[in-house]
Amino acid sequence: MVKIEGKFNEELYLTNETGRYLYHTYAEHLPIIDYHCHLNPKEIAEDKEFEDLGEMWLSGDHYKWRCMRTFGIDERYITGDASYYEKYMAFAEILPKLAGNPIYIWCALELKRFFDIDEPLSRANADAIYQRTKALIREKHMTRRWCMEHSKVRLVSTTEDPIDDLRWHKQIAQSDCKTRVVTAFRPDKAMFLADKGFGDYLTKLAAASEQAICSFADLLTALEKRLRYFKETTGTTVSDDGIPFFAWADWTEDEVEAIFQKAREGKATTQAEQDKYRSAFLFNMARIYKRNGFVMQLHIGTYLDANTTRVARIGQSTGFDCCDDATAVISVGRLLDALTAIEELPKTILYPLDGTKIEAWAILAAGFCDSGTKSKVQLGAPWWFNDTVYGIERQFKACANLYPVSLSVGMLTDSRSFLSYPRHELYRRVFCNYLGEMVERGEYFSSEENLKEIIEDVCVRNTNDFFGFGVEGL
Amino acid sequence: MVKIEGKFNEELYLTNETGRYLYHTYAEHLPIIDYHCHLNPKEIAEDKEFEDLGEMWLSGDHYKWRCMRTFGIDERYITGDASYYEKYMAFAEILPKLAGNPIYIWCALELKRFFDIDEPLSRANADAIYQRTKALIREKHMTRRWCMEHSKVRLVSTTEDPIDDLRWHKQIAQSDCKTRVVTAFRPDKAMFLADKGFGDYLTKLAAASEQAICSFADLLTALEKRLRYFKETTGTTVSDDGIPFFAWADWTEDEVEAIFQKAREGKATTQAEQDKYRSAFLFNMARIYKRNGFVMQLHIGTYLDANTTRVARIGQSTGFDCCDDATAVISVGRLLDALTAIEELPKTILYPLDGTKIEAWAILAAGFCDSGTKSKVQLGAPWWFNDTVYGIERQFKACANLYPVSLSVGMLTDSRSFLSYPRHELYRRVFCNYLGEMVERGEYFSSEENLKEIIEDVCVRNTNDFFGFGVEGL
Amino acid sequence: MVKIEGKFNEELYLTNETGRYLYHTYAEHLPIIDYHCHLNPKEIAEDKEFEDLGEMWLSGDHYKWRCMRTFGIDERYITGDASYYEKYMAFAEILPKLAGNPIYIWCALELKRFFDIDEPLSRANADAIYQRTKALIREKHMTRRWCMEHSKVRLVSTTEDPIDDLRWHKQIAQSDCKTRVVTAFRPDKAMFLADKGFGDYLTKLAAASEQAICSFADLLTALEKRLRYFKETTGTTVSDDGIPFFAWADWTEDEVEAIFQKAREGKATTQAEQDKYRSAFLFNMARIYKRNGFVMQLHIGTYLDANTTRVARIGQSTGFDCCDDATAVISVGRLLDALTAIEELPKTILYPLDGTKIEAWAILAAGFCDSGTKSKVQLGAPWWFNDTVYGIERQFKACANLYPVSLSVGMLTDSRSFLSYPRHELYRRVFCNYLGEMVERGEYFSSEENLKEIIEDVCVRNTNDFFGFGVEGL
Repeated sequence: MVKIEGKFNEELYLTNETGRYLYHTYAEHLPIIDYHCHLNPKEIAEDKEFEDLGEMWLSGDHYKWRCMRTFGIDERYITGDASYYEKYMAFAEILPKLAGNPIYIWCALELKRFFDIDEPLSRANADAIYQRTKALIREKHMTRRWCMEHSKVRLVSTTEDPIDDLRWHKQIAQSDCKTRVVTAFRPDKAMFLADKGFGDYLTKLAAASEQAICSFADLLTALEKRLRYFKETTGTTVSDDGIPFFAWADWTEDEVEAIFQKAREGKATTQAEQDKYRSAFLFNMARIYKRNGFVMQLHIGTYLDANTTRVARIGQSTGFDCCDDATAVISVGRLLDALTAIEELPKTILYPLDGTKIEAWAILAAGFCDSGTKSKVQLGAPWWFNDTVYGIERQFKACANLYPVSLSVGMLTDSRSFLSYPRHELYRRVFCNYLGEMVERGEYFSSEENLKEIIEDVCVRNTNDFFGFGVEGL
Repeated sequence: MVKIEGKFNEELYLTNETGRYLYHTYAEHLPIIDYHCHLNPKEIAEDKEFEDLGEMWLSGDHYKWRCMRTFGIDERYITGDASYYEKYMAFAEILPKLAGNPIYIWCALELKRFFDIDEPLSRANADAIYQRTKALIREKHMTRRWCMEHSKVRLVSTTEDPIDDLRWHKQIAQSDCKTRVVTAFRPDKAMFLADKGFGDYLTKLAAASEQAICSFADLLTALEKRLRYFKETTGTTVSDDGIPFFAWADWTEDEVEAIFQKAREGKATTQAEQDKYRSAFLFNMARIYKRNGFVMQLHIGTYLDANTTRVARIGQSTGFDCCDDATAVISVGRLLDALTAIEELPKTILYPLDGTKIEAWAILAAGFCDSGTKSKVQLGAPWWFNDTVYGIERQFKACANLYPVSLSVGMLTDSRSFLSYPRHELYRRVFCNYLGEMVERGEYFSSEENLKEIIEDVCVRNTNDFFGFGVEGL
Repeated sequence: MVKIEGKFNEELYLTNETGRYLYHTYAEHLPIIDYHCHLNPKEIAEDKEFEDLGEMWLSGDHYKWRCMRTFGIDERYITGDASYYEKYMAFAEILPKLAGNPIYIWCALELKRFFDIDEPLSRANADAIYQRTKALIREKHMTRRWCMEHSKVRLVSTTEDPIDDLRWHKQIAQSDCKTRVVTAFRPDKAMFLADKGFGDYLTKLAAASEQAICSFADLLTALEKRLRYFKETTGTTVSDDGIPFFAWADWTEDEVEAIFQKAREGKATTQAEQDKYRSAFLFNMARIYKRNGFVMQLHIGTYLDANTTRVARIGQSTGFDCCDDATAVISVGRLLDALTAIEELPKTILYPLDGTKIEAWAILAAGFCDSGTKSKVQLGAPWWFNDTVYGIERQFKACANLYPVSLSVGMLTDSRSFLSYPRHELYRRVFCNYLGEMVERGEYFSSEENLKEIIEDVCVRNTNDFFGFGVEGL
């Protein structure tokens, strides 16, 4: 078995000659616009050097935590009080067992791109690699911004709650940070009216927006104020809506107002009431996005906090979220239709989490495109559980058929890690391989110039144009 | 990148040697039976020469219209009052951007097969190709029938409403048209009792069937009369039922009669009532199909007119339909079961539109097959949004496992375009490639004669036998 | 077309060199633990020689029966009174038509592995092969146990109802059977309270457990008694729950008791009541599994007896079952969450039947893994309709991304046939091919030793460890 060379391969994933040529010629050196991530802006502002590879990999990455739990590893080595070295060693132990898991190849790419390490990590060389990377972190002063600049990241968008004061974003803007940092506006907490903290949240939002919130209309006004603050402060045009489950329900203003008052007073609401409120909320937020030039990003089908006991013990977003499969395409269709009827549909990106059902969503997106706006509604990147070579390739193969892939705004990391930019590399490899395969099968035979344009558009230019980021020199 | 040859490739999609051999030896030259399309019979009867490639491609093809809208092209160049030349030029502009979209390869195949054009269409050569094809249309007198005969189409089935008088079909039958033209019987309007036009439709149907329609029983009688008229006039055995959403509900005759009367009088009906009516309607239509020797074709999961505002402005079937994902397999299962219970299940083809869920439908089909009738219930062709190399290949790979693919009635165009027959070619290429792949992997090793039979059966013979068309010399 | 060699190929399905090496070096000769099948223990106990290939293939295999019905073959040759020879000949006739169907390659593998027959079966050689295999059966005294031993099967788990006295298992244990035979505990009949036989079933269960069953609590006690009997008698730790459709519903003890009493008295229950009962039943059974060290196996989404008329005539499990697509992931999530909340979640395997939706289930499984237990909740093997090269490969590709495949307990036959062990071979081929592909694409480059471990773990060791079977020498 001479094929197992035991070292990182620069032709990773590229199975056809044309794809290799396209990747190395047109995609490999492009910069990155990471228009959706969960980086902590405080960390960017403070820009501390990393302590070690343990901190880099395991301080906040719930993908790895979740994976470690499948092996039954003690929680102490996952989110507990073990040292980063201990956590790293526990993780290194299982890495060779992760054949087929994106974490395996992400780690390999991160070791190669940030530390020029070719060899596979395992228990045997874990300590040696730990020491070597620690020395390199010191030697090169690897900080948060260093990672972004090293990866040619021109812009990132974090995501913040409307009540956030954006102090860190302001500090970053005044610093010499070479990567532009904007933030997405994420009003989810104002939508989850059945959550216990809903009333408290309204109080905080009222404070942030400097106005009383006594009605649903007040809520919308407060949110729009904050959205304008987000835009003024960071120049952002990015929204971020998470929809765990969504069943469209027609509503009247009086109904929604009554439901809002119940929730505000901490009274229980029924599923039917929640459906009405959610429908009204998304409909009205979309109108706010439209009139303020924002792109509406709908993340559909999350099943957050599935394991409630562990979430209560360990926290939200620590690896206990799952994927729902019950939101019907027609529910979101009704939302888009209602907005089209009043000619107030903003640019929209649909991100279904259930990757097996992307086709019906791509079809829906095409049905609401319109004269005058390029790709007005489009299917979003294969995110989270779909950010795998399989998920990425499936999305190209299944959806280029249904919606021109050349119009896509491409990849995002959705990540909490400053080392995760090689996910863009993986996406670009799969994309070029996909294009090369079609060329070699005779399914595409327009000029090389067209392929160059398509690659550059999808990898970086479409994003910049669609969101109007104004990043130059792309 | 020597691989981009910049011209049409006769080995299109064929990635293995055995597949190439099978395609060129057994499939390439077979005739076509297109048992489901949306061609306009008036056009076949009048048989006019096409004006230009703009008319051929853009006069009625909502696949292209929809695609143009994703690029934000002005509606004037899509369905508006721009000339065919202008529309063609707007379309040619985006064609090189359609990598991975079936429209790209369909256009390439159509240019090759009808005009012997090898080069890729782009803005640069669009005018030249326009002029060249226009000259060829004149030179060869390319009419509607010319396209069908050139493509070796032996039979097409259009689809008409029961109230249609079939005057054009009669005229075609009396002409020297070499392609036989039958029509599918499509009683959808009698099923959509919640539509505004339901009462008016009953009036028209009463006129067409020359009998009063005062009850649900009357409706069924009227429909059966028209179905017999369709059969007598064109010899058809093809039905066409569209089911946007279907939830089986048990009913009593009295209930259905009451629901029918409400709808007839223009009163609103509830979802539960509509479910009962639809269940009763399909159950009774199936019995009519059975006793008249028709094949029941159920098109499941359309989400028609999703973008209601644009449909109101531009029209139905102009590119604003989507795909529903909410009809449960068990709902159709209950229908098949109820019909089996009274031994009145007709031959049936299930066409789920949501291509991601075909497996459960293939399984359902097999569960209702019966002694004495070959492939009594079967899974239909990968139609509409699934008519792509990806969708076709998936159907073979996912469903040959669950239902013998050798029994399939094969491909249809479902198209409004007289140039769309290369879709059969694409299907045959994917099929032969699939068979070749299995042979080369050792998954199939029976004789070449068996493969020849399977290919001919699926490409043309099964259709002829299943519908009893009686096309000779296959 | 020199590629159709007309004989069985030992490189079957292996398309890459590394995969071939891995299969032949590490997987090919491993023994089998078949931890879920439907073999008849009476047949194992009596261990009769098979009559002929007709009996081997067609006496109980509803996969083949179902397939024969798609060809419209007379039921007499399927489950009717035709001789095994006649049935075999009818089946041989259609076999060459089964390109792409797992039955084709299973039959080829069975002819090769049990009878060393290389050539493809067809009508032409059917009689010759019949005679040849019959002679070999006699010559080698091919009995039920012979088949298992010949296939290196170290352990099988049949599946029995709690009322079973396990007399055959006892007899086997006292015999010289080289394959260990345990049984899964399958309490489905106690869950289907809406079935007509529910009351009678309770009476039988009361007799078997030697206690009155007057309440839901009594039922649980009786079931736990029987479960302990199963464990004492065969040493089993395997459960088997089938869930045709499952909608989680919160309940109170009083509610469940009232529902139970209604059903016990033969009164009709509503869907809502059935949902509550099912939720309570599975919740309580899981607790019983946990405290008795059993693995909970949930088979989700069957649509049993879809064709009720044919089931009434021909029987259950004779080829009229289908696949449901309506159980939401969140319903099972609520069950797992409720059990986690009381720290009584047993080791669990989720087996969704709808193979198109496995991803959301793999994600769910990972969300409930826990410190201290390796792969506490995991996705089950691609069973029944998914037991095809396509289904197996999809599961690796789609789910190794979401849950480490190296932790999987691997394949099972779920079969009624003593010849079905080559299904493990097929699975191992696909697995090694999948690993080889990743190695060749650079997606995995850890050492060969790691691959060896992963292969052995998935093929046989994980099963042994997870269930605690204690099979030695693996």
